Amino acid sequence: MRALHPYLYGEQPKIKGLIKLNTNENPYPPSPRVLAAVRAAVDGRLRLYPNPTAEPLRKKLARLHGCAPDNIIVGNGSDELLALATRAFAEPSPKPKVQGSNSQWAKSAVQYFTPSYSLYPVLADIHGAVRNPVPLRPDFGLPTVAELRRGKIWNFGAALTFVTTPNAPSGRGYATSELESLCRAQRGVVVLDEAYVDFAGENALALALKFPHVLVARTFSKAYSLCFQRVGYYVGHPALIGALHKIRDSYNVNGLGQVAAEATLDELDHYRANFHKIISTRRWLGGELTKLGFCVFPSRTNFILAQPPRFSARVWLDKLRARRILVRWFGQPEVAAFLRITIGTPGEAEALAEAARKIIGLRRG
Amino acid sequence: MRALHPYLYGEQPKIKGLIKLNTNENPYPPSPRVLAAVRAAVDGRLRLYPNPTAEPLRKKLARLHGCAPDNIIVGNGSDELLALATRAFAEPSPKPKVQGSNSQWAKSAVQYFTPSYSLYPVLADIHGAVRNPVPLRPDFGLPTVAELRRGKIWNFGAALTFVTTPNAPSGRGYATSELESLCRAQRGVVVLDEAYVDFAGENALALALKFPHVLVARTFSKAYSLCFQRVGYYVGHPALIGALHKIRDSYNVNGLGQVAAEATLDELDHYRANFHKIISTRRWLGGELTKLGFCVFPSRTNFILAQPPRFSARVWLDKLRARRILVRWFGQPEVAAFLRITIGTPGEAEALAEAARKIIGLRRG
Repeated sequence: MRALHPYLYGEQPKIKGLIKLNTNENPYPPSPRVLAAVRAAVDGRLRLYPNPTAEPLRKKLARLHGCAPDNIIVGNGSDELLALATRAFAEPSPKPKVQGSNSQWAKSAVQYFTPSYSLYPVLADIHGAVRNPVPLRPDFGLPTVAELRRGKIWNFGAALTFVTTPNAPSGRGYATSELESLCRAQRGVVVLDEAYVDFAGENALALALKFPHVLVARTFSKAYSLCFQRVGYYVGHPALIGALHKIRDSYNVNGLGQVAAEATLDELDHYRANFHKIISTRRWLGGELTKLGFCVFPSRTNFILAQPPRFSARVWLDKLRARRILVRWFGQPEVAAFLRITIGTPGEAEALAEAARKIIGLRRG
Repeated sequence: MRALHPYLYGEQPKIKGLIKLNTNENPYPPSPRVLAAVRAAVDGRLRLYPNPTAEPLRKKLARLHGCAPDNIIVGNGSDELLALATRAFAEPSPKPKVQGSNSQWAKSAVQYFTPSYSLYPVLADIHGAVRNPVPLRPDFGLPTVAELRRGKIWNFGAALTFVTTPNAPSGRGYATSELESLCRAQRGVVVLDEAYVDFAGENALALALKFPHVLVARTFSKAYSLCFQRVGYYVGHPALIGALHKIRDSYNVNGLGQVAAEATLDELDHYRANFHKIISTRRWLGGELTKLGFCVFPSRTNFILAQPPRFSARVWLDKLRARRILVRWFGQPEVAAFLRITIGTPGEAEALAEAARKIIGLRRG
């Protein structure tokens, strides 16, 4: 316990007036009808327990995805679900062991690409599982199965494999066909973590309904502007879903979160319009930063990863903060040269570009 | 995983018009000011993450309890916190072991009295810890430390001990002095689970601030009519609290739940008036059922445990349900003869008494 390092979440500042582009929140509010539905539910019923299995929400999600409610579990944000999978599918290992033909090692292995969501190693450590981080290609592309076999670090029998798709923090999207090849080669459980998939061109949800060992994780936080409410879900085979139901807290999803998520599913056109705005702002900001000398990676998410010119990313972090703009910088070597910038409103993107021009010295101020 | 039995929560019926006295919910709605505060928070801010450590709420709770915010962790209902303690303080044991001088056994032991909250053995099983259930006295009183030593089942070195105080499902209250003797004798972590303490005459919060190995669990669900929102908390030594913070989900408490709990703390007089009403209804209902031949245990909670006359408790459950009244029956041998009845409004209590009169045959209908 003493040796554990907690997950480092992005700063949630108390200072007003900051432009907050550091935690990939959606710049647009929930749909007015979603807000109205939540307000209408705030009455004496708060005294009652919420639906313990989020059944009405699971039914609606099942209709959306063309599956059964038994294919779905809802969580207190997708973070809860990632933690549940770690505890359900990887065995705690009393002592870190060396990889090899040792099947005990594989039973405890939580495997993921680097860089990807920095929560995965934290979850492995908390559970006492062993980590198996495997580098992505230098351009953050997914290695092929043949490349992974040649590399000999990847373990095809790992108890649990997390794939952030599209990737964070790079923003890179992956083709469903390459994800399918990976899933097909994998013997343990694979979680395709699609937290940002609504900003991408394709999704891999079909793989969760095709393979009995694949789960797709989704969240209402980012694309559906409901971070505050904590609602995420998995789609997958009823056997995997049922195992997770057994170990979750009985009333794990708060009632107003369920209400908000249900109302959101009646408003998908509203949110699709937001996705288009964010994708358009992403294109504009990427272009502006490229003109200023940033090396911007193509993004399929609501953020971009960019290597800034002139100063180190660490120095840029401070210089932007001094101009009341928060972005995210990760210390890990493979991304230490980059800033991760959430796509805000057009006005926020323009403010960021203007601050960058001033920091570079192209403008006074 | 396949062998796990999930926690059996009370039925959450879909049928309207039922009188629901089965899950210990408060019959009174939250204060109007609490509802207004929650409604006022339902706006574009739902797109943002909630405070990751529930800091404003912890500060308010710290003022209430005369401690520091570092003495407090807030959870997604106290159920999440009970699960966190199990994972933090008990070690999974690869194989069930026999108790004895074996210190490895004690490191994996989750210990509790029977009957008490039926979630504890479920949490032990999920974590792969070993259970150590120890019977309460026949009248649900707490055995003394001397009695526990003589009994030789109780383990004073158990990694984690849960004590439901007041007890559920019996409703029996325990004196702080007897809890203190137990805590003093215990070497592992002790969680005093005070879910129902607001309906009792005294509480043991001071023990969490006195002993470095004692946590007191509280919840906003029952006494504060906020089941729907999922907010509970622990008070304890910063070292224990800090360990739990390390392993919880980053954003474990939903934002509107934090708002509701904060507003609740400004309205304590409103809730104290509710406690008095519930205690008064408890007294009335206990008296009525006693007149009808029920054996009613004295309660310090918002429910009563009662052994019904004429028919078995199992049969009473069905007969009451046929009259649209839900109560709770537990199958475990030590309480199988009893019904657990939540204290509702005076009208609901009268409806229950009237249904009982008819079932016994004292009235027609």
